[in-house]
Amino acid sequence: MNRDELERLLADVAAGRSTPAAALERLSELPFADLEIARLDLHRELRSGLPEAVYGEGKRPEDLIAICRRLLAAHGRVLATRVSAEAAALVREALPGAVYHDRPRVLTVGAPHDAPATVVAVLAAGTSDLPVALEAAVCAEWFGLRVERHFDVGVAGVHRLLARLPDVRRADLVIAVAGMDGALPTLVAGMVAAPVIAVPTSVGYGASFQGLAALLTMLNACAPGVAVVNIDNGYGAAVLARRIAAARPTP
Amino acid sequence: MNRDELERLLADVAAGRSTPAAALERLSELPFADLEIARLDLHRELRSGLPEAVYGEGKRPEDLIAICRRLLAAHGRVLATRVSAEAAALVREALPGAVYHDRPRVLTVGAPHDAPATVVAVLAAGTSDLPVALEAAVCAEWFGLRVERHFDVGVAGVHRLLARLPDVRRADLVIAVAGMDGALPTLVAGMVAAPVIAVPTSVGYGASFQGLAALLTMLNACAPGVAVVNIDNGYGAAVLARRIAAARPTP
Amino acid sequence: MNRDELERLLADVAAGRSTPAAALERLSELPFADLEIARLDLHRELRSGLPEAVYGEGKRPEDLIAICRRLLAAHGRVLATRVSAEAAALVREALPGAVYHDRPRVLTVGAPHDAPATVVAVLAAGTSDLPVALEAAVCAEWFGLRVERHFDVGVAGVHRLLARLPDVRRADLVIAVAGMDGALPTLVAGMVAAPVIAVPTSVGYGASFQGLAALLTMLNACAPGVAVVNIDNGYGAAVLARRIAAARPTP
Amino acid sequence: MNRDELERLLADVAAGRSTPAAALERLSELPFADLEIARLDLHRELRSGLPEAVYGEGKRPEDLIAICRRLLAAHGRVLATRVSAEAAALVREALPGAVYHDRPRVLTVGAPHDAPATVVAVLAAGTSDLPVALEAAVCAEWFGLRVERHFDVGVAGVHRLLARLPDVRRADLVIAVAGMDGALPTLVAGMVAAPVIAVPTSVGYGASFQGLAALLTMLNACAPGVAVVNIDNGYGAAVLARRIAAARPTP
Amino acid sequence: MNRDELERLLADVAAGRSTPAAALERLSELPFADLEIARLDLHRELRSGLPEAVYGEGKRPEDLIAICRRLLAAHGRVLATRVSAEAAALVREALPGAVYHDRPRVLTVGAPHDAPATVVAVLAAGTSDLPVALEAAVCAEWFGLRVERHFDVGVAGVHRLLARLPDVRRADLVIAVAGMDGALPTLVAGMVAAPVIAVPTSVGYGASFQGLAALLTMLNACAPGVAVVNIDNGYGAAVLARRIAAARPTP
Amino acid sequence: MNRDELERLLADVAAGRSTPAAALERLSELPFADLEIARLDLHRELRSGLPEAVYGEGKRPEDLIAICRRLLAAHGRVLATRVSAEAAALVREALPGAVYHDRPRVLTVGAPHDAPATVVAVLAAGTSDLPVALEAAVCAEWFGLRVERHFDVGVAGVHRLLARLPDVRRADLVIAVAGMDGALPTLVAGMVAAPVIAVPTSVGYGASFQGLAALLTMLNACAPGVAVVNIDNGYGAAVLARRIAAARPTP
Amino acid sequence: MNRDELERLLADVAAGRSTPAAALERLSELPFADLEIARLDLHRELRSGLPEAVYGEGKRPEDLIAICRRLLAAHGRVLATRVSAEAAALVREALPGAVYHDRPRVLTVGAPHDAPATVVAVLAAGTSDLPVALEAAVCAEWFGLRVERHFDVGVAGVHRLLARLPDVRRADLVIAVAGMDGALPTLVAGMVAAPVIAVPTSVGYGASFQGLAALLTMLNACAPGVAVVNIDNGYGAAVLARRIAAARPTP
Amino acid sequence: MNRDELERLLADVAAGRSTPAAALERLSELPFADLEIARLDLHRELRSGLPEAVYGEGKRPEDLIAICRRLLAAHGRVLATRVSAEAAALVREALPGAVYHDRPRVLTVGAPHDAPATVVAVLAAGTSDLPVALEAAVCAEWFGLRVERHFDVGVAGVHRLLARLPDVRRADLVIAVAGMDGALPTLVAGMVAAPVIAVPTSVGYGASFQGLAALLTMLNACAPGVAVVNIDNGYGAAVLARRIAAARPTP
Repeated sequence: MNRDELERLLADVAAGRSTPAAALERLSELPFADLEIARLDLHRELRSGLPEAVYGEGKRPEDLIAICRRLLAAHGRVLATRVSAEAAALVREALPGAVYHDRPRVLTVGAPHDAPATVVAVLAAGTSDLPVALEAAVCAEWFGLRVERHFDVGVAGVHRLLARLPDVRRADLVIAVAGMDGALPTLVAGMVAAPVIAVPTSVGYGASFQGLAALLTMLNACAPGVAVVNIDNGYGAAVLARRIAAARPTP
Repeated sequence: MNRDELERLLADVAAGRSTPAAALERLSELPFADLEIARLDLHRELRSGLPEAVYGEGKRPEDLIAICRRLLAAHGRVLATRVSAEAAALVREALPGAVYHDRPRVLTVGAPHDAPATVVAVLAAGTSDLPVALEAAVCAEWFGLRVERHFDVGVAGVHRLLARLPDVRRADLVIAVAGMDGALPTLVAGMVAAPVIAVPTSVGYGASFQGLAALLTMLNACAPGVAVVNIDNGYGAAVLARRIAAARPTP
Repeated sequence: MNRDELERLLADVAAGRSTPAAALERLSELPFADLEIARLDLHRELRSGLPEAVYGEGKRPEDLIAICRRLLAAHGRVLATRVSAEAAALVREALPGAVYHDRPRVLTVGAPHDAPATVVAVLAAGTSDLPVALEAAVCAEWFGLRVERHFDVGVAGVHRLLARLPDVRRADLVIAVAGMDGALPTLVAGMVAAPVIAVPTSVGYGASFQGLAALLTMLNACAPGVAVVNIDNGYGAAVLARRIAAARPTP
Repeated sequence: MNRDELERLLADVAAGRSTPAAALERLSELPFADLEIARLDLHRELRSGLPEAVYGEGKRPEDLIAICRRLLAAHGRVLATRVSAEAAALVREALPGAVYHDRPRVLTVGAPHDAPATVVAVLAAGTSDLPVALEAAVCAEWFGLRVERHFDVGVAGVHRLLARLPDVRRADLVIAVAGMDGALPTLVAGMVAAPVIAVPTSVGYGASFQGLAALLTMLNACAPGVAVVNIDNGYGAAVLARRIAAARPTP
Repeated sequence: MNRDELERLLADVAAGRSTPAAALERLSELPFADLEIARLDLHRELRSGLPEAVYGEGKRPEDLIAICRRLLAAHGRVLATRVSAEAAALVREALPGAVYHDRPRVLTVGAPHDAPATVVAVLAAGTSDLPVALEAAVCAEWFGLRVERHFDVGVAGVHRLLARLPDVRRADLVIAVAGMDGALPTLVAGMVAAPVIAVPTSVGYGASFQGLAALLTMLNACAPGVAVVNIDNGYGAAVLARRIAAARPTP
Repeated sequence: MNRDELERLLADVAAGRSTPAAALERLSELPFADLEIARLDLHRELRSGLPEAVYGEGKRPEDLIAICRRLLAAHGRVLATRVSAEAAALVREALPGAVYHDRPRVLTVGAPHDAPATVVAVLAAGTSDLPVALEAAVCAEWFGLRVERHFDVGVAGVHRLLARLPDVRRADLVIAVAGMDGALPTLVAGMVAAPVIAVPTSVGYGASFQGLAALLTMLNACAPGVAVVNIDNGYGAAVLARRIAAARPTP
Repeated sequence: MNRDELERLLADVAAGRSTPAAALERLSELPFADLEIARLDLHRELRSGLPEAVYGEGKRPEDLIAICRRLLAAHGRVLATRVSAEAAALVREALPGAVYHDRPRVLTVGAPHDAPATVVAVLAAGTSDLPVALEAAVCAEWFGLRVERHFDVGVAGVHRLLARLPDVRRADLVIAVAGMDGALPTLVAGMVAAPVIAVPTSVGYGASFQGLAALLTMLNACAPGVAVVNIDNGYGAAVLARRIAAARPTP
Repeated sequence: MNRDELERLLADVAAGRSTPAAALERLSELPFADLEIARLDLHRELRSGLPEAVYGEGKRPEDLIAICRRLLAAHGRVLATRVSAEAAALVREALPGAVYHDRPRVLTVGAPHDAPATVVAVLAAGTSDLPVALEAAVCAEWFGLRVERHFDVGVAGVHRLLARLPDVRRADLVIAVAGMDGALPTLVAGMVAAPVIAVPTSVGYGASFQGLAALLTMLNACAPGVAVVNIDNGYGAAVLARRIAAARPTP
């Protein structure tokens, strides 16, 4: 769909020849705009609620800049994850408004999204889980959610978690990040009524097998209602949180 | 906490000596009531929003009946999963109001829960995935959600799914159940804005390794925002759906 | 070593020609007595503190009876694990004093061992873990330890565990039995100072992979000081508990 | 078989003392020519339709050059895969006609093969899958096939794939390359009648386990008729495509 | 699409109001017909070249009969795999023309498909691999291919294979079925120019891990051009063979 | 709990307003002190017998120094594991009394703990297992245990172990460290009555799979009473040894 | 090769027209005789030293009898493994000289092979390993080797093994059979100079994973010179022993 | 055993006070000499036929030199494997007679062992397998065996192997080294009567999983009589070859 078609479509809506719902439906069906560098999925926001994000791992800085620039032009904002400090420095030169979060290696340009007022409690079991927890927290904030951080509340000292429990209970959603034994989400899910998004991390050694142990623990959580995402996938947890926040009961 | 204590607590609330919030907080902290047959977690509903369910696998009918009776007395309703047809027949004799769903092997007594009006689309990839999909559907209905069933919409014939897409898009939540290649949730998550709960099933042969292939596919879904639960765990998906339905944005 | 040699050895000790320590040393070196049915390790008690136990799985009743009888003759008592109800009935006919514990499928003949006064708290996460927990409990009692049972204290409702905590803290040793997510031992190890023996069980479904998930969780316990044994190995946990109870600080 | 023998064989054919078919048969049986540097399989082309290719990974540049030179002398062309940019620069100095494709790290010298006119649609799910997809594409072109590239058509935005569907349907063969959830081939196989060659890539993180997740997905494709090759093996997919292209129905 | 619509479409083609190509395109887009028992994918033949087959495992005889009857009405023929002898007997009573192949447990009704004249050599390594090899052979014949069987040609006695080599070399396609070490396809692929479809079987014991060993061997075949399908999936191999047979070079 | 509260608590005890037991109970319940850099678990010693240790892997030297300084202030001593030589040099500059053990990469400041007189025999199978064995030995000594080292006593030359047996038998506890086949602990457990703590190491190549082989061997030890910890986890073995040493039979 | 050809060949040898070596060479090249029931590899004895054995698992008695009869006719003897007691009874009726060993389920007809005088010590770790150990022992005796049995010599009581050591040392070859921790072969290989053939068994439970643990232990044996065969493969161990016995140093 | 004791022992033999056999027995029982740097197993040669070798991986050059010097003093020769080129250079300076084989990274000092005249055919499937194959070859020669190299004879071009078959058949033993599909040993074992030692290598990519695929293939070899060693363990194959060569039938 080119600019002309889009204008015509909107004119149809304006003139009453098409309803907004019909226009939205039609736009949702359109897959992508064909660009030079990459085939960006510009209508993903219409279909699935959030625009495409950039996965920075292994992308050359010049490509990263070009893609960010294009998405910025389309949406007025862009989010990139797994961006190295070196690449981030170059992007920030090219796109002056860019903000870089160095521990979670997340880069954003523009203003965050709006979202229904939602409080997400992001819990991390240990200090080594912080990069993943911060990726979840920074992305969730970017998606318009209010984040409360509760770090270093692993089950080895369960009193630290209990001390935070009243706050955690007041949150609408919980993201629980843990490596090693991955026991945090199951414990939390037994204590709160909110949905618990569990993020296993690759933290640990020996028989943690790069996060497999934590992943299996979370899938087998004896407290039901735990949503598991991929190992180290803080970004995915944030997207899921945003989807949940946006899910409104049918009146 | 015995009946006397409970009466005293409520009297305190009535007399203004305690606020309802404080009373709720205190009740939530109470762990369980010590019974003869089993240590039932009678306050789980206060803590985590839903009462304890009964996992029927391997339980003797007489124990099943006793536990159901006790939970029924406490909550006025009970849900049991993985109940064999033989056990169900005996339970229904003992507890006349019991209803048995034979394909998903779910048994309920009493009236379903109330919940904020929420539509859950339950999708199943193939006919062999039906028992798990029905466990999710029946449990979600029990938890007060409205369920729309879209079965046999696997990706081998993606047009079947596309034909259902407008309906699926209108749902507040999606539960996508699939075995074999487990590709259904990733496809759906790219088309709708709602949260997608993915349930891998152990359906398949050879290199499906009892659901491992579908599980890994779902964890690696290239469309973000997919919540994965354990293999064949339709009940867990329903609990998660209910938690999401109950999660209200903070005003 | 035949009876004659043993008599001579003891006579030497009596006559001062050998010290008791030397005699013990020599006896410990002796490997086994060659019998008709099986090569029983009659001196294991001297070497490793406990006599050989009988693993009943797959043994024919007549062999089981013969082996029990022989060990009974040597030691005045015998312990057999994994004995089916059918085999147990036959053994009890042949050996009238035999006692059979049907849930853990353990059979004993004779009086339990003596041991330094030691309290072992045996915890089980769920009711499905009971057979393994009871194998641990019954064997530990057979080895002369005092056992306190705390069943159904899984982390899905952590308040149940907290209610028992003062009792558990007073125990000298803890055996924590759990399937599914296997999170119980790590939680306990963060709350008590005693050694925690963790027994994963094969309870669970889907991605529990017959106890692998619980096993990995326990090996990766973020609270240090957890001793892990094989899946479903309640007997091994009891032997380890006895070894610990018998370990006395060097004055 | 040395030069003399070959001359004699051909003379026999020329003189009618041997039929061409018999000569071909005899040549096919001959295994290899014994060289100084390596035992090159010079008759592989006769047996299996394509000459031996050079696997460049870990080979020293001088060896690579020598082997390429020898195969070039025997066949008039050579294909090398997994050649680093550094090695390629040296090979191009030594063998002026060499062409290097840097993203797929493929090096060719001489003219491509002839093949029955065949169109191969090479699909890639994401931009990270490009090196593997390009290895498949470049090799397939080298083997004489006509390649149409459809990159970035992953299932997260299935409309991108649907937009290309008419083109893909016209192709004789499809090579579908995907990492992460590996769902692309199963989707395509449900939409086209051509053989679908599925290439899992090691792209992904966490529970993708270096391509294992995608591999299992493809082996369990619920649409039948998917041919799976090894992880990241674009070259193997191209060889298979060429074999299929060369397979002619028996009249 | 109901019968009326279909008639109108065809009338349009007949009257020149639509081209056959356009009609085909439109039909291909139609996903399925909504039936009582199951959502049968009646247009799969248009999209992917072969109609839907019935997977008989675990289906009740009455359902099997109903589904077969419906597909028979739609296509004039039906293929069902993994049908037990008991179920087959009942189907044959209900559908008199049904033919049952007992070793591969395949059931067919009606006449086989037509296909371009193609010879498929089906090789089996050992006698235990026969059920899978026969499933491949019977299905391939059903799809209109000419099958030549070469059974018991495993690599433990490679001379058996060499004796058959001239015949195998003349085939257009090879399906190589093997369990245990799974080495047969790699050996064959080094000797013939045709595409080799490798089917690992779950035959073997100990470290074969239900076909995993054979599967990995085939994926790592050092002779390139091997197409691997799922463990024990003879049907899938036949579908792939049919797709290859139907793939015609573009003129 | 700040200093003031602690003073008041102790004053209460002193004045008889609180018993020591009650005060200990209350202190044990307190979870942590909220600090600037990290949430240190300052009361872990009260709950589980040993203060928190610092896991040095991946921590920046300045953070390491700050954490060590804070724990030193709280406890008068500190233990850090997995500290690189570079980091250790900086820590030693900042904290002059620090001692660094370079092979096991352990750093301590202050005086070791007191403990009931206990002899721990630390056995290592091969020289490559030394870093892990030394981590166990140094930590055990730090926890107040007396350590006897028996290195290079692997089962390939079982006479080396037999020569040490009388010494090993006199120990109260055994820590057996082994990679490769991991057979040492099972052998030792058959020869001594003391508890055997088994530490698998990641030493080995090929099918040792980074310690998985040794781990499985130890979990399956045919001599019962073996306590297994995580791969390469010498520190965890020492904590377990200390817990066992501190476990006193109830009089 | 039919009988006539064979006669001609032998006549050629007798007449000096062919050397025995040339005749042997030619016979070795012949692959098989085409029979009705199965393609028996009648010349395997010439190629690899032993005739084909019959793998009885899953074969129907009548097929088993027919195959045995044919091999008996060709070689004057036959060996069948994994023969059930029921099948064995029928075979013995049909072939009166047949001998059945019930614990290892091995059946033989005719006289054992001759072999160079060789003593094989067959060791079994536990009584549950006996069926596999006996399969090895009975087959080795069938192949003409002299077998000495040393059962129940597992490493849990290493003195039992040491008591047998002088005998084991005198053997030419050792076959060591063990499940669970699989530590026996590594121990033996450190004590004797003979080749040690290690046979892992599927005996064990929990984390033995059907023999995987024992298999990995044996592959990682820290004493070099251990030959590992498949899990439960006593027959394979015997064949390997025979091959070693037959290997004569070149003068 | 110190020098004095050894002299006395030998004097006893000389004087007839002890038989040589008794002296040998006694020496075999002595485990090791306690040295400064390491506990070298100086009597391993007496027990298991070959002296201890040095595993060079990760050893510091000065330790390597010291250990080599000590073993050299004891045995007059020494073998070290996995020695880097840098370390080798330093060792050769310190021990002038040292010889370094750079591809297999093996270092020897002194004269090779004597052994019964034995021909070992070392086969390698591909050029990437050469380092492992050469480790086997060089070590076997060091142990006194005569080695014939047959490299690049993988099954992708089976005629290369067939061309070498007469030579391979004349060997007393075969060591077959292969990565990727690992099919070489099973093929060879079907063609020769000698023992076949199979060495899987970690060569391959994708689903070879660092040699796991080749390892499983070899363990499941459908030709019986294959002895498998650990992945990449050329040295272990050579030790096994030597043990076999030294195994003499009992007269």
